[in-house]
Amino acid sequence: METATSLQQIQSSYIREILSAASDENVISLAGGLPDQATFPTHLMAPTLKKLADMPEVFQYEQTAGYAPLLRFLSDEFSLPENHEALVCTGSQQGLDLLARAYINPGDPIVMESPSYLGAMQVFGLVQANILTVSQTEGGPDLAELEQHFAASAPKLFYAVPDFHNPTGVCWSAKTRKKVAALCIQYQVTLVEDAPYRDLRFSGETLPYVSQYCPDLAIVLRSFSKTVSPGMRLGVVTGKADFIQPMIKVKQGADLHTSVPMQALLLGLLQHEDFPDHLTQMRQLYRSRYQILSAQLQTQLPEGCTLNTVDGGMFVWLKLPECDPFKLATQLLTQGVAVVPSPVFYPPGSTEIKPALRLNFTNSTPEELTKAVSCLAETLSQYPGRK
Amino acid sequence: METATSLQQIQSSYIREILSAASDENVISLAGGLPDQATFPTHLMAPTLKKLADMPEVFQYEQTAGYAPLLRFLSDEFSLPENHEALVCTGSQQGLDLLARAYINPGDPIVMESPSYLGAMQVFGLVQANILTVSQTEGGPDLAELEQHFAASAPKLFYAVPDFHNPTGVCWSAKTRKKVAALCIQYQVTLVEDAPYRDLRFSGETLPYVSQYCPDLAIVLRSFSKTVSPGMRLGVVTGKADFIQPMIKVKQGADLHTSVPMQALLLGLLQHEDFPDHLTQMRQLYRSRYQILSAQLQTQLPEGCTLNTVDGGMFVWLKLPECDPFKLATQLLTQGVAVVPSPVFYPPGSTEIKPALRLNFTNSTPEELTKAVSCLAETLSQYPGRK
Repeated sequence: METATSLQQIQSSYIREILSAASDENVISLAGGLPDQATFPTHLMAPTLKKLADMPEVFQYEQTAGYAPLLRFLSDEFSLPENHEALVCTGSQQGLDLLARAYINPGDPIVMESPSYLGAMQVFGLVQANILTVSQTEGGPDLAELEQHFAASAPKLFYAVPDFHNPTGVCWSAKTRKKVAALCIQYQVTLVEDAPYRDLRFSGETLPYVSQYCPDLAIVLRSFSKTVSPGMRLGVVTGKADFIQPMIKVKQGADLHTSVPMQALLLGLLQHEDFPDHLTQMRQLYRSRYQILSAQLQTQLPEGCTLNTVDGGMFVWLKLPECDPFKLATQLLTQGVAVVPSPVFYPPGSTEIKPALRLNFTNSTPEELTKAVSCLAETLSQYPGRK
Repeated sequence: METATSLQQIQSSYIREILSAASDENVISLAGGLPDQATFPTHLMAPTLKKLADMPEVFQYEQTAGYAPLLRFLSDEFSLPENHEALVCTGSQQGLDLLARAYINPGDPIVMESPSYLGAMQVFGLVQANILTVSQTEGGPDLAELEQHFAASAPKLFYAVPDFHNPTGVCWSAKTRKKVAALCIQYQVTLVEDAPYRDLRFSGETLPYVSQYCPDLAIVLRSFSKTVSPGMRLGVVTGKADFIQPMIKVKQGADLHTSVPMQALLLGLLQHEDFPDHLTQMRQLYRSRYQILSAQLQTQLPEGCTLNTVDGGMFVWLKLPECDPFKLATQLLTQGVAVVPSPVFYPPGSTEIKPALRLNFTNSTPEELTKAVSCLAETLSQYPGRK
């Protein structure tokens, strides 16, 4: 049976493939975006897990939007305006997929940052969107470029990760947040604010959601994969009811609703009095790992490499001198270190792909991080074309 | 933001809407396809639920195909041939959606039984398939019509529910199974065998899967929603690896993978020594309810109504004299009984829509079934146009 045309253009996720190679026990993987398994708050889940056996109602079919008690809790937690609603998804990845299917016709222009999140490129690719890219600066997207796209192409939406961007770790400045929202309002472009890393801030001050400045022209995606557990597959999409209803319609056909026992388990956890402590400890752990990785890189890396500083999230972005990052990543893998080379993060049609590596710091021990940097430094110093 | 063209043609599921109306405590609902909550084997799940708190690995990201120990168990359980593989889905509904997205281009002809499963019409509608319909006889699809479609239109696939069809409860005869498989092979049409009710047989002998006669030209969808719990959202798709791989590619973007704690819970349950007893008890319960509904209908219904007999599943199909089944269903709802009128089960383009009602017998007590039939008989006897 021949596959659909839309699928023929989609490559299987490189990340999923490298993760498979990196699962070898002898490989130190800075490639994935995995939280450390030791942080999963299973001890705080234990009481709810036990209770589930006496809650047959959560094993029955549920409304598509989600488990009512969880929806009420989240509406309150997020202080949703009266005209907004929440939709629980099978991971925020599903939220993105539903959004793309509900709103994008083949050829519809949309804007993404470049580089950008692979999973978003995949879903927008599947619906055959016309992806326009905007370069990233230290403080967020290049505003002049963004306005040019908005003015010239009237895109349907702007997909962005303003907090601790994947892959670069960039966090938008306060000024950029306000300005992007103003541009969205001026040109009537819907902002899709993807915020899976927002709760992983370990230094600096929390900045407002960009959507706070354009609430009725925004769809916000939140995830529990980074702060609770990715295996549970739970995310939430919020926005104006008018925006959410078409996504609910698609979800009816996609999977009817998200696992209810998982939603009940999440609710029990979020209501546990020790949940805030869990978040604090996780942030401290990730900060310490980031500091080790950053310090080692600063000390050991050859000239010509530049590392950004980050205030949270899971990744740093190591800019490299002119080279083939794919070859470099392959060579590193033979040395037992997995990383992701920059080209995979550029949407098709990106004009300028800069050589870099995405390095994850959340799922390796201090010893592994140190060892990986030594290996990286050595490989880089011997790399053909390097002095 | 304007919705996608493909979505504008899709009506929100009537069943989801009637279920919402039917959730009123004072309504007896024969409308849904819900298993009885009292059958959920939560006592057999309790030991695994407790163990999950000590299994942090199931809270981590997993490969897209599913939780490896569950995949191994299912491969063995289903005696999958060497060249076949399994994909765990977020309900078998997702399996259908992935299949439609992986294989169907807008305008591609596919064949479905008429009447047919609503959720399948929804996903094939979303990908804008050209839906051809084949009438149902007592023993399965009309074979002459089916061959005519295969010969004239070279459809990509034939979607079918051979065991205790939704909505009609029809179970294909042994002869029809062999003949359909032979036609699929002759015309090289892929068979999509959807089998969510297969394990709910409460009388007669189990017949082979249709796909057993054309294993390399078939995709089989199995569900745990009817035998275990729909709230968990777990289904499995199997077929030739070549057939499954494109669906895995779509699933990467759709939700990365299905909840791993749910998969681990299912595995624990399927391996529980008392699981076969659970199935036996559930079948006995549903048989007794079917017998009550059937006996009451035979006794009380006015002339001109015909009821089929079923050997399993969740539904009977009550054929009515000429009338407007929508109006009848609406009138019944005002009397406190929810049912689903036949027209919603006919794919667009069906030439002959027969007046009927789908009645569910798995989620009502004997008293409720009896009361519902009295109400139905009374309403029908007074129905305008009836003698």
